[in-house]
Amino acid sequence: MTEQESLQLIPAANLAPEGNRLQHLFKKEKIKLYLKKKFPIVQWFPNYSWQFFQCDFIAGMTVAMTVIPQGLAYARIADLPPQFGLYSSFMSPFVYCIFGTSKDITLGPTAIMSLMTTSFCSSSIKNDSTCALILAFVAGFIQLMMGLFHLGFLISFISGPVLSAFTTAAAVTIGFSQVKHIFGLKKIPKDFIHCVYFTFAKLDETNVWDFILGISCIISLYFIKKFRSIDWDDEDEPITFSQKVARKFLWLFGTAANAVVVIVAVSITFAIINIYPDKADFTLTGDIQSGLPPFRLPNFTIKQGNFTQTTGEIFSDIGVGFFIIPLIGIIETMAIGKSFARKNCYKLDATQEFVAMGTANILGSFVSAYPVAGSFSRTAINAQSSVKTPAGGVVTGFVVLVALIVLAPVFKYIPTAALAAIIISAVIQMVDLQIIRKMWNMQKTDLFIYFITLISSFALGIEYGILIGIGISLFPLLYPLSRPNIQIQQSSPPVINLELGLQFPAADYFEDTIIDMLNTTIRAHYLILDCQKIFSLDYTAIKSIEKIIAYLEPHNIYLILVGLKTKEKNKLLEANIPALQFSSSIESAIQQISEENPRIDSEEQAELIINN
Amino acid sequence: MTEQESLQLIPAANLAPEGNRLQHLFKKEKIKLYLKKKFPIVQWFPNYSWQFFQCDFIAGMTVAMTVIPQGLAYARIADLPPQFGLYSSFMSPFVYCIFGTSKDITLGPTAIMSLMTTSFCSSSIKNDSTCALILAFVAGFIQLMMGLFHLGFLISFISGPVLSAFTTAAAVTIGFSQVKHIFGLKKIPKDFIHCVYFTFAKLDETNVWDFILGISCIISLYFIKKFRSIDWDDEDEPITFSQKVARKFLWLFGTAANAVVVIVAVSITFAIINIYPDKADFTLTGDIQSGLPPFRLPNFTIKQGNFTQTTGEIFSDIGVGFFIIPLIGIIETMAIGKSFARKNCYKLDATQEFVAMGTANILGSFVSAYPVAGSFSRTAINAQSSVKTPAGGVVTGFVVLVALIVLAPVFKYIPTAALAAIIISAVIQMVDLQIIRKMWNMQKTDLFIYFITLISSFALGIEYGILIGIGISLFPLLYPLSRPNIQIQQSSPPVINLELGLQFPAADYFEDTIIDMLNTTIRAHYLILDCQKIFSLDYTAIKSIEKIIAYLEPHNIYLILVGLKTKEKNKLLEANIPALQFSSSIESAIQQISEENPRIDSEEQAELIINN
Repeated sequence: MTEQESLQLIPAANLAPEGNRLQHLFKKEKIKLYLKKKFPIVQWFPNYSWQFFQCDFIAGMTVAMTVIPQGLAYARIADLPPQFGLYSSFMSPFVYCIFGTSKDITLGPTAIMSLMTTSFCSSSIKNDSTCALILAFVAGFIQLMMGLFHLGFLISFISGPVLSAFTTAAAVTIGFSQVKHIFGLKKIPKDFIHCVYFTFAKLDETNVWDFILGISCIISLYFIKKFRSIDWDDEDEPITFSQKVARKFLWLFGTAANAVVVIVAVSITFAIINIYPDKADFTLTGDIQSGLPPFRLPNFTIKQGNFTQTTGEIFSDIGVGFFIIPLIGIIETMAIGKSFARKNCYKLDATQEFVAMGTANILGSFVSAYPVAGSFSRTAINAQSSVKTPAGGVVTGFVVLVALIVLAPVFKYIPTAALAAIIISAVIQMVDLQIIRKMWNMQKTDLFIYFITLISSFALGIEYGILIGIGISLFPLLYPLSRPNIQIQQSSPPVINLELGLQFPAADYFEDTIIDMLNTTIRAHYLILDCQKIFSLDYTAIKSIEKIIAYLEPHNIYLILVGLKTKEKNKLLEANIPALQFSSSIESAIQQISEENPRIDSEEQAELIINN
Repeated sequence: MTEQESLQLIPAANLAPEGNRLQHLFKKEKIKLYLKKKFPIVQWFPNYSWQFFQCDFIAGMTVAMTVIPQGLAYARIADLPPQFGLYSSFMSPFVYCIFGTSKDITLGPTAIMSLMTTSFCSSSIKNDSTCALILAFVAGFIQLMMGLFHLGFLISFISGPVLSAFTTAAAVTIGFSQVKHIFGLKKIPKDFIHCVYFTFAKLDETNVWDFILGISCIISLYFIKKFRSIDWDDEDEPITFSQKVARKFLWLFGTAANAVVVIVAVSITFAIINIYPDKADFTLTGDIQSGLPPFRLPNFTIKQGNFTQTTGEIFSDIGVGFFIIPLIGIIETMAIGKSFARKNCYKLDATQEFVAMGTANILGSFVSAYPVAGSFSRTAINAQSSVKTPAGGVVTGFVVLVALIVLAPVFKYIPTAALAAIIISAVIQMVDLQIIRKMWNMQKTDLFIYFITLISSFALGIEYGILIGIGISLFPLLYPLSRPNIQIQQSSPPVINLELGLQFPAADYFEDTIIDMLNTTIRAHYLILDCQKIFSLDYTAIKSIEKIIAYLEPHNIYLILVGLKTKEKNKLLEANIPALQFSSSIESAIQQISEENPRIDSEEQAELIINN
């Protein structure tokens, strides 16, 4: 079965007939369309076949082989006990199976989401999951709202350079945080700068056992992963069945590299500890709580010994995390999803993806999952395993559940150095330094933004890095909104042109510009404001017009608003501005002036008045 | 001496001659102009006269009469010992005297800045000033940078409704936080909702002594303040000298209302305590550290008993406070400054004001001042007292210094109910409910933003309220940037028009739109992208073009970029995009197509290709 045969998830929007025909459809048909859009599973499940299941089963198993070791490892980054990585790995694929519009996307714990979780829960107690679960719950809620209110456009404001710098900074931060486990160092602080300093400062405390194991794992991972993408150079030649099986095996071996390394590492350490019980000194993961997490609403307060935190305090500590985490989660997922959707020729429904992710996070928080997102490595494995529908995730989820019940006693023997190796070899692929050279050649301002984001991520933490990056990259977009081009035609009377309308950021500048010009270059008794390009006046803009008129009146200067739409005119009339004058066109305004003031029409007289 | 005679502070920018003449000026003259711009004191001090000093002295004294009781009271809002209000009141007017461009603006502690300080330092220890001083130092630094890099445009993005809702929420939060002092209630939590709840819940614990005193102070303040603006109804009639003196006295009495009430309250409580030492139970301010604060760089870590906080932890707790506080400070100051500048016919130099405020906050932090801003009430008093130059502030500063040295032993007898009354009667003027009716009539979306800001300020704290308000009011401005109008002319070949250029927020949407259209409505072998309105391509936009071309190539569809500027063309060439094609005009592009592919030019063939 080839890729082309796989189930095409056509977004229901495209299935909907023209509005005209829709009216004639029976209500039942309408409901069906609605269900297909809101629950994409309704679209593909009726056609689900045994063949699809075979493919999904293999893919689901393969992904599970990766998510189990990754989950255990990523939970460490999130500062949570290892089992939380598994808690975060089963609910999201279940939910995604119902709501998702991509067969490839694999939701679950990711390195970046794990780092974000610990960044925003830093003032929480170590190993306490309350803050992380609140984060998942609220972030999910916000993602759901973003889906329902079509706020997806917000993610466009994270530019390529900012995202790249953020990802690189996150990868370096995460990668370096694991170096201490490779060297078996203890008591290294968390924040990046101190972490780097103390890792080097304590190198003489290296635990040789951990170090040899860790380095071996990193090297093994590097080579084993290569099996996944061996180029056999004989694509056109026929291959034998045994060749085919051998190749498939090598691919699977490469794909399950993480699991292979962990299993080998556990076996070796276990053997060595038994042979040299006095000498061998590996750092192991330690006890892992076995069994399934409870199903319940997350706690919204922390009480542990002397330490208590109210909901308000936790929320205030998380702060902008409630905004950043859902956004980053969506960006991660959409970036991966889109690239596979294009490759495999189907279309993602962005709104529905937001709903799927939001629901996955909300329901995840009920089973002790911290915030999840689309994982790049596992999505790639899923796609390469020829997954056919999101049901592959259900298989993954069940394997994780079984592992939680059955394998937990074994997990405690996993050496931390092996998990650190898994993390390091995962995040190293996220670093893209090519972009620096490209931006240098193409657009140096982008390079500037890139480095600001990168440096502030290292110095202040990635959560501030991305905020600062977004902020700075918005400057060139916002500036023209607050400093629009205001043209003054030095005719008699002078005509003021607003090329881009008048919105609140421009209001203050508009006010200042007019008043400045009256005090310096313009001398007139009447001013015409050409309002044809004003589509909507907001409160701030109306107040500015009011202030200008109030400033002009004592100087006997009058502002005539020309060509304003009736609706906007009514708004101004509501403001009860004395001396407010309207006209339909510049010509009629000029006539109006000459009728009202047959005597005053020379600039000299106006000048006299203004200088009074 | 009337208002007209006062020293006009002409911004040096206006004094600068045309660029042409400037070249011929002697270097000395240039330095003079530079100094006049950067140190406006150079402009007015050489003309300073005895007459000016008399006016400034009276104004400075009058302002001091207000700032001393207000400072003691506002420090309570900032959760600091009362003397910090005075520490914050002398350095800023000294600095402003050198750098400021307005004679009226009076920097110092304000109710809003005090509330913001406590909001962002909430996880600090009670009465510890470290966080507040760091806030002043960093906020000052950012204000200075905003001045030097001309980032003043940023304040335009806080719209009228958001600012009004923020001010109202701040006033209500501050006002209500003082109600407990009027009733003499103890142990009321700080955050708004709990504060309101427990204030009502504990009403039966009311301290009658505090209550009677507090209510009396509020009523007295209301009536005494009225003396400031008595309308004598005889402006044109001649008045006798004694009438004049009497009127001046009444005005002074009204202006110094805060001081009057405090002095009377202290005297009465002192008397009652001495008469009924066993019965009288007033809550007093308590010991105030006498003397001047030390001059030193603020501490950047907290160590107090068991509690320690590193610089990183403090900075991370303050978080967006470093962005919000300087912005709010600038908005407060500029709003007040501008209104008085217009009234008294001079011009504020915004850049220089930022520099003045920034320097005042930085140097303030050296003398234990928390963040300061322009005070509306004291600026009004200053202007009404016919201040002539910013030297009035120097007088105020010296009076505050004297008070710190001499009066501190008396301050401990000030009843907290009296200070609470001062705060309540100050913030009540900040509440503007008229705006609700106006927005209802004019622009209901603004009303929506107003209420979102107001409600989130009460529910989450004013610091989040304003962030959410700014965020929501940006939506309608940002949306068009990320979803620009992309017009496709269904000619052969189709021409894609970008009306608003191609900036990074639009890149993703552009990419999706083109690819969607190719899959649905457009059937063609060549596509023309009209790039005439593209002024600058950023990295994200280039990547999008690259992705579109990469998507089109396997389908044998080619994108021709028409009318791109050379600089932008070079950027694209740097990207090494295969199959990149340029043309100078649509006509030449069409010719190019027919030359390259004489055979394929019918839409049907292209359709075959795309559906392959």
